[in-house]
Amino acid sequence: MGIQHLRRSPISATVDFDAHGVQHGFLRLPYSRDDSAWGSVMIPVTVVRNGEGPTALLTGGNHGDEYEGPAALFDLARRLVADEVRGRVIIVPAMNYPAFLAGTRTSPIDKGNMNRSFPGRPDGTVTEKIADYFQRVLLPLADVVLDFHSGGKTLDFLPFCAAHVLPDKVQEAKAFDFVRAFGAPYSMKMLEIDAVGMYDTAAEEMGKVFITTELGGGGTATAKSIGIAKAGVANVLKAAGILRGSVTPAETTWLDMPNGDCFAFAEDDGLIEPTFDLGDQVEAGDVVARIYPVGRTGVAPSEIRAKMSGVLCARHFPGLVKAGDCVSVIAVVVG
Amino acid sequence: MGIQHLRRSPISATVDFDAHGVQHGFLRLPYSRDDSAWGSVMIPVTVVRNGEGPTALLTGGNHGDEYEGPAALFDLARRLVADEVRGRVIIVPAMNYPAFLAGTRTSPIDKGNMNRSFPGRPDGTVTEKIADYFQRVLLPLADVVLDFHSGGKTLDFLPFCAAHVLPDKVQEAKAFDFVRAFGAPYSMKMLEIDAVGMYDTAAEEMGKVFITTELGGGGTATAKSIGIAKAGVANVLKAAGILRGSVTPAETTWLDMPNGDCFAFAEDDGLIEPTFDLGDQVEAGDVVARIYPVGRTGVAPSEIRAKMSGVLCARHFPGLVKAGDCVSVIAVVVG
Amino acid sequence: MGIQHLRRSPISATVDFDAHGVQHGFLRLPYSRDDSAWGSVMIPVTVVRNGEGPTALLTGGNHGDEYEGPAALFDLARRLVADEVRGRVIIVPAMNYPAFLAGTRTSPIDKGNMNRSFPGRPDGTVTEKIADYFQRVLLPLADVVLDFHSGGKTLDFLPFCAAHVLPDKVQEAKAFDFVRAFGAPYSMKMLEIDAVGMYDTAAEEMGKVFITTELGGGGTATAKSIGIAKAGVANVLKAAGILRGSVTPAETTWLDMPNGDCFAFAEDDGLIEPTFDLGDQVEAGDVVARIYPVGRTGVAPSEIRAKMSGVLCARHFPGLVKAGDCVSVIAVVVG
Amino acid sequence: MGIQHLRRSPISATVDFDAHGVQHGFLRLPYSRDDSAWGSVMIPVTVVRNGEGPTALLTGGNHGDEYEGPAALFDLARRLVADEVRGRVIIVPAMNYPAFLAGTRTSPIDKGNMNRSFPGRPDGTVTEKIADYFQRVLLPLADVVLDFHSGGKTLDFLPFCAAHVLPDKVQEAKAFDFVRAFGAPYSMKMLEIDAVGMYDTAAEEMGKVFITTELGGGGTATAKSIGIAKAGVANVLKAAGILRGSVTPAETTWLDMPNGDCFAFAEDDGLIEPTFDLGDQVEAGDVVARIYPVGRTGVAPSEIRAKMSGVLCARHFPGLVKAGDCVSVIAVVVG
Amino acid sequence: MGIQHLRRSPISATVDFDAHGVQHGFLRLPYSRDDSAWGSVMIPVTVVRNGEGPTALLTGGNHGDEYEGPAALFDLARRLVADEVRGRVIIVPAMNYPAFLAGTRTSPIDKGNMNRSFPGRPDGTVTEKIADYFQRVLLPLADVVLDFHSGGKTLDFLPFCAAHVLPDKVQEAKAFDFVRAFGAPYSMKMLEIDAVGMYDTAAEEMGKVFITTELGGGGTATAKSIGIAKAGVANVLKAAGILRGSVTPAETTWLDMPNGDCFAFAEDDGLIEPTFDLGDQVEAGDVVARIYPVGRTGVAPSEIRAKMSGVLCARHFPGLVKAGDCVSVIAVVVG
Amino acid sequence: MGIQHLRRSPISATVDFDAHGVQHGFLRLPYSRDDSAWGSVMIPVTVVRNGEGPTALLTGGNHGDEYEGPAALFDLARRLVADEVRGRVIIVPAMNYPAFLAGTRTSPIDKGNMNRSFPGRPDGTVTEKIADYFQRVLLPLADVVLDFHSGGKTLDFLPFCAAHVLPDKVQEAKAFDFVRAFGAPYSMKMLEIDAVGMYDTAAEEMGKVFITTELGGGGTATAKSIGIAKAGVANVLKAAGILRGSVTPAETTWLDMPNGDCFAFAEDDGLIEPTFDLGDQVEAGDVVARIYPVGRTGVAPSEIRAKMSGVLCARHFPGLVKAGDCVSVIAVVVG
Repeated sequence: MGIQHLRRSPISATVDFDAHGVQHGFLRLPYSRDDSAWGSVMIPVTVVRNGEGPTALLTGGNHGDEYEGPAALFDLARRLVADEVRGRVIIVPAMNYPAFLAGTRTSPIDKGNMNRSFPGRPDGTVTEKIADYFQRVLLPLADVVLDFHSGGKTLDFLPFCAAHVLPDKVQEAKAFDFVRAFGAPYSMKMLEIDAVGMYDTAAEEMGKVFITTELGGGGTATAKSIGIAKAGVANVLKAAGILRGSVTPAETTWLDMPNGDCFAFAEDDGLIEPTFDLGDQVEAGDVVARIYPVGRTGVAPSEIRAKMSGVLCARHFPGLVKAGDCVSVIAVVVG
Repeated sequence: MGIQHLRRSPISATVDFDAHGVQHGFLRLPYSRDDSAWGSVMIPVTVVRNGEGPTALLTGGNHGDEYEGPAALFDLARRLVADEVRGRVIIVPAMNYPAFLAGTRTSPIDKGNMNRSFPGRPDGTVTEKIADYFQRVLLPLADVVLDFHSGGKTLDFLPFCAAHVLPDKVQEAKAFDFVRAFGAPYSMKMLEIDAVGMYDTAAEEMGKVFITTELGGGGTATAKSIGIAKAGVANVLKAAGILRGSVTPAETTWLDMPNGDCFAFAEDDGLIEPTFDLGDQVEAGDVVARIYPVGRTGVAPSEIRAKMSGVLCARHFPGLVKAGDCVSVIAVVVG
Repeated sequence: MGIQHLRRSPISATVDFDAHGVQHGFLRLPYSRDDSAWGSVMIPVTVVRNGEGPTALLTGGNHGDEYEGPAALFDLARRLVADEVRGRVIIVPAMNYPAFLAGTRTSPIDKGNMNRSFPGRPDGTVTEKIADYFQRVLLPLADVVLDFHSGGKTLDFLPFCAAHVLPDKVQEAKAFDFVRAFGAPYSMKMLEIDAVGMYDTAAEEMGKVFITTELGGGGTATAKSIGIAKAGVANVLKAAGILRGSVTPAETTWLDMPNGDCFAFAEDDGLIEPTFDLGDQVEAGDVVARIYPVGRTGVAPSEIRAKMSGVLCARHFPGLVKAGDCVSVIAVVVG
Repeated sequence: MGIQHLRRSPISATVDFDAHGVQHGFLRLPYSRDDSAWGSVMIPVTVVRNGEGPTALLTGGNHGDEYEGPAALFDLARRLVADEVRGRVIIVPAMNYPAFLAGTRTSPIDKGNMNRSFPGRPDGTVTEKIADYFQRVLLPLADVVLDFHSGGKTLDFLPFCAAHVLPDKVQEAKAFDFVRAFGAPYSMKMLEIDAVGMYDTAAEEMGKVFITTELGGGGTATAKSIGIAKAGVANVLKAAGILRGSVTPAETTWLDMPNGDCFAFAEDDGLIEPTFDLGDQVEAGDVVARIYPVGRTGVAPSEIRAKMSGVLCARHFPGLVKAGDCVSVIAVVVG
Repeated sequence: MGIQHLRRSPISATVDFDAHGVQHGFLRLPYSRDDSAWGSVMIPVTVVRNGEGPTALLTGGNHGDEYEGPAALFDLARRLVADEVRGRVIIVPAMNYPAFLAGTRTSPIDKGNMNRSFPGRPDGTVTEKIADYFQRVLLPLADVVLDFHSGGKTLDFLPFCAAHVLPDKVQEAKAFDFVRAFGAPYSMKMLEIDAVGMYDTAAEEMGKVFITTELGGGGTATAKSIGIAKAGVANVLKAAGILRGSVTPAETTWLDMPNGDCFAFAEDDGLIEPTFDLGDQVEAGDVVARIYPVGRTGVAPSEIRAKMSGVLCARHFPGLVKAGDCVSVIAVVVG
Repeated sequence: MGIQHLRRSPISATVDFDAHGVQHGFLRLPYSRDDSAWGSVMIPVTVVRNGEGPTALLTGGNHGDEYEGPAALFDLARRLVADEVRGRVIIVPAMNYPAFLAGTRTSPIDKGNMNRSFPGRPDGTVTEKIADYFQRVLLPLADVVLDFHSGGKTLDFLPFCAAHVLPDKVQEAKAFDFVRAFGAPYSMKMLEIDAVGMYDTAAEEMGKVFITTELGGGGTATAKSIGIAKAGVANVLKAAGILRGSVTPAETTWLDMPNGDCFAFAEDDGLIEPTFDLGDQVEAGDVVARIYPVGRTGVAPSEIRAKMSGVLCARHFPGLVKAGDCVSVIAVVVG
């Protein structure tokens, strides 16, 4: 492991992270393949620096089919002028760029799930090489890290900003301050059970302030959900002191996912009929979805019941469901 | 053409459309292929008959990625008991069954778009054979035809029930009576410019009462949108006198798509940022969407403007868009 | 139709069907495609001619995953010497050559099922062009036509030679004489319900003697089943007077498939457990197969019952089955 | 390695292996992918426990295209009642469940060959995660392990039950006692040359009694071959004292594969003509198969000859063969 | 046929072919598909009109993997200013636009070979709809038609401009005047044996002056080959009187392909070793290529010999060859 | 690592590297897969040995779409007779044989780039197993190693032979002597920046004399380029004293790629128009290529400029280009 980390990242940036002003460029990752022997993956990046101050690292497209983050960040990258900034903003609107271009959660090159690929490897797959670059080059530059997520093509979420419960309570408190500043309609305290391989964990283990979001899903984004993302990122930069002005106050409902009972899984393939919509109050024991077998008519659907009471905060999105798919997530309102 | 129509359909039903009671069965369509030399497509069908009376033909899954219709019809097929019925109900929850199983708009077998395949051919592709069976066997049995649609994976619609402006004004009036009975939040008068190949046209040319819907989209269905479908089909059967009871009254907003200016098309590939959501009022000249080129940051998006004023009634769904995609549809409120 | 038939076949033979002696060559069919702008399909053909006499047209690989015919015919093509022949033998061991190379029932180029593509079209798909060449060039040259079939990858058959019940009883009697001469363990009288598009029909409508076989299946061939094919083709050539010597006598059991009740179809997907093997006696009402749903354990399988009594003469081959697949065929012993 | 083994398996069982009675459930393996962000693989499992006694672990579908095991085990799982059992029976009818659903030897997810994936990894591919779960959770629970195999889609075997020659002769003797109890028509002593990665080895290294089978092949199963599997598993459970009653005695022929000369490999692509069938006696030097080049007629086939004398116990199944394929295996009768 | 031709093309142009000045726009062809229910193919088009005068219709990308034409025409479309033009220039740089985007000879949508799809159909495949639009809308507007071709990914040509030998000798002479004006290094008189479905034929049958080219191949274009295309199109516009100035004189060698003996075809798959390069003089009987079987070393390659003497004017491009591929074309120098 | 290296390679050779005379055989690599449970990859190999003397190891097809090497080596393998040889010649014309059969740079089995897979692994992917066999079996046998490359389908090169600048100047000098002997039109001194995983490095680290080539590209080979390869390999064997006779003298131009400025990369997708051809002199600042966006006409292309002066020695080959592709390489003439 140690030896491998001495190896340089194969990625080279066409921007200079230390230079002042606005730079638009690429993280160039050589990628030899059948249709381009000497090809590269070109990940767009923008750096805006002005004077001394903290660094915010802003990312979307960690999963390639989640669009609020990329929309807010392509917009921000184009609009941000150096004079407005104190410190530095690094924007990568589409972190897993091959996945983003393909409109898929994972990379079409190596099926890599970026958020399970950290700390990455300089001599690994394309996804692992990108993770390694964030791990060893970009994260160390950052003070505050905002990573946008949504449900992607197969899940839909109530819009929330979130941070993790952390062993370092000072770090945790700072992160929740930023969640509050973000100002999404909902805010979430997350206790990650299996955090291995996550970008979140990589940032948190370096002591960075890390916040994330889930702002919708289904592989789309709406005027409203993109509006939440745009307002949120501006608020975060203000809260960090990088942008001038004060955070726009917004009401938020605090949610908690206390344990594994919040999840319900399908045990059958079929056509799903949800019986609650996002934001609805569900009681333990309620049928949250029916699954119709599609091979014949006249057969009773199987029923999936809630194991706890609360608000429906996430749901399976596509009209068809497969055995093993998570069909619903229930959260408890805590504030 | 005439000779071909003398040929029998290769489809055989395992139900007897003239028998009384409830029957669940299949439309069996022989389909020889590499993975089954003597295989068949088995399209589920339910027939409920009791005494004399009109026949309603109810279909979902004309496009395979639209789910409100199949959910309402698998449910109805399972619940309907003969005693409640006067006349006959024929239910095919998933008309283009191979497409429905695949979760795709068109058939994975032959890429057939069922709603452009009428009148079909008994010796054509699988999709054309199904169309031919509806054209020559099922439609002639029907008095009222309800065909459920939604936007599918790539479009999203305000929920409406609709009928066509027809040359026969008596037939047209009857159809709009059924639209009113259906009771969707919105109702639409449609003037089809190119109706060639549509199931709608096939039914209307036989003098049938034909109504259709668009009840959402994105390749999902919600508790709310399925609720509209379930209520609507019950109302239609009541309006037809097949089910007892009176139609549940519901408020609806009447919409009209007066001409081609209602559509806006993308001229570029990219990441789409919609600036209005479904149901929003749009003025002619407003930017309805921005398209960001995804190859680099720092570039201005192209802007798409509305050519007329009205309500946003349909929109491109996925977060990425391709040149030529319809990005928005505007309708005028007429009642 | 008439005009189209005036167009020449695009296929050119590198052999001269009128020349004497042994020729090995190709039917060359131009096929422009992405990976060869000026490419061709090269269908191997052998012609052996000596003096005057009848012409036998011998074909395998009508379906590309059936191997007894190709094995017997590649062997025969290599061994046949002109001196042994009186008349002419035309051998095409792999009629649907693209399917044969791919090991699939239908053509990988156009999904064409050769035996449903007659009379073909000179300007149609690759499969239709081959059919047209047989229809307009090869079949007219023939007196006796032997087309080898087996069950392919998805069916398995008792080994039989067969001919059709025909309106012309003289033609029919000649064909059954050749079936008897072939000498397979079983012999079958076939009454084709839907004969449209078949090579058989094309040949029979020209008044040719046409016989066919089913000699096994599963996408394999055994020493035994190839032995039946080799002996059969030699007997046929002797019976036709093309090869010297007398037909080797062989015992055969005559079978009949009297009506559609001989077929049983699956209505469910799953794991199939056959309860009879080929050649077993089955009584009407017997369970011939169970289908286990594979989504969970502990569930009863569906059962498929025989609709008539007789001998199991064909069966679904793969371990998994899909709704609509034919699972068993029962024949009656008639002699 | 050590650290990785401290990590918990991501698989959770919905059954309690220690509870008494019959339970049908799943091994749920989270599997995030493009078409289900929070999806899982759901591997069916049945546990039947009654009182104290030994544990039998019964598996099919180690390779996904081998059907005797799954058929016998889906049947057994449904029929077994707790009262009949003393001890515990754990049944996983389709070990490499994704492969089994796809009807392929290896997993369609990761191309994993389950029987070369042991000891697996909790953070590896889907196949490696399943292997790891058997390695660290299920195998330690077992006393007797029966793993069903057949030839799959590309090989065909004489039906035999087998165990390995082992360094621990007591363990080996026990295993051969179980082979004898199984009662297949043939029984085999196997000396594995390269046992790395095998489930067999994993079980044997823990000191378990491990037996396996080859019961046919070609991707099918017959009434007869499933009958052998059903009788065999019942006999094994009786021999272990888990089921009441005595083993049904059956005659078996003992075979041995003494060295690498038993295998013959193709050096050419082509159409294969086997010259012996399973069970036939072959002499060293005999041609066991001919391979016809399929590019043209009139060319001599290559010939493959036996390197030793014995019984043909396995053969290449498909009608086409590729250079490098094993075309035949010869065994010596030893009892 | 007549009735179908009354149907309007589904393609609508966003440019006005009668307006003066420079317009860049699209031919929009609605194309509903799984990933865009209301999608379109957007074929770029440029129209430059100034005053009265003849119309030149300039096309590239008839086959999607031929690049000299698109490069010259994207360049011309950008540079042409209305003042320089007398009459009208219509530029479609990528006629089979889906194929051009995919870099393939035929359309990835329907495998349509544009140059075998004329006259097309308004209700046919995407390729047939484009052909129909050229047939019924664009060709009637034109006086002179220049269609650029090259060898594509699988063939390589000596650079030539060409026209057909025509029944109307006045039309033919005009066309050859334009070939001379084009000024490619080589010029060719082509006698098309099977001209059915060609764009060439469609134009010629309307009495248009039609010229075409082959300017290289292999799926690439060089500075030199693009230079020939750019100079040629300028010369053609000058010769037509649309651009001011006189044709730049260039030397050319006139070639003829007198009969089918000019082609040589492979009868084997393998690795091709050409023994002559483009422009080399070949004598009848010379070995023009060797084909090595790739399955083993030590085997003699098959040899392909020239059937006539002349200059090697086209050759198979990829290093591997398949039976049926054209490996070489020989032309005779006639001037 | 150490333990893994104790494991034997799974590859077995059917030739004896120590035997005298000419042997043609295979490197057989067991490869179990869905379409052949007991299949193998059969890599052709020829060994010619006569008396004592040095060993030359000659390889082509390290990348599967480069053809000069395979053509020269299949030819040499067939022609070489033992009497002409003093010492030993080992010829593997297609090192990454699965890639060679597929005509792709990397292996279709595992996407393995052979030249980044060293030292390989005996228990790794198919490509890694082949690399391991060369690393541990073949390279140790060799004194001189010649590995043929060309540009493949996506690059085109001036024809050169090359060796690396090495720390051991004696080894380096020997290698450049062999480069001179090879006698290509150009010769190159290469300073590899990232040599990890290369076959070159593996050989050089063992102290072998290693030379390589780039002899063209585009996925084709010409009479001329194959001629260079044939002459070169004969010269190398003569220079090594393995073949009798003296090296044929040839003029060569020595080139150097002094630093990373020699490369130019695309930052946009589009249609590429090169403005220089191979061998042309380019000045720093010259536009070497234009990239036209293909979505619409009338837009200026992006321009790519040379960062240094020199000779164009390599270029992007396909007519379309993607962001990140290397579009040109410039070398300095040094002798």
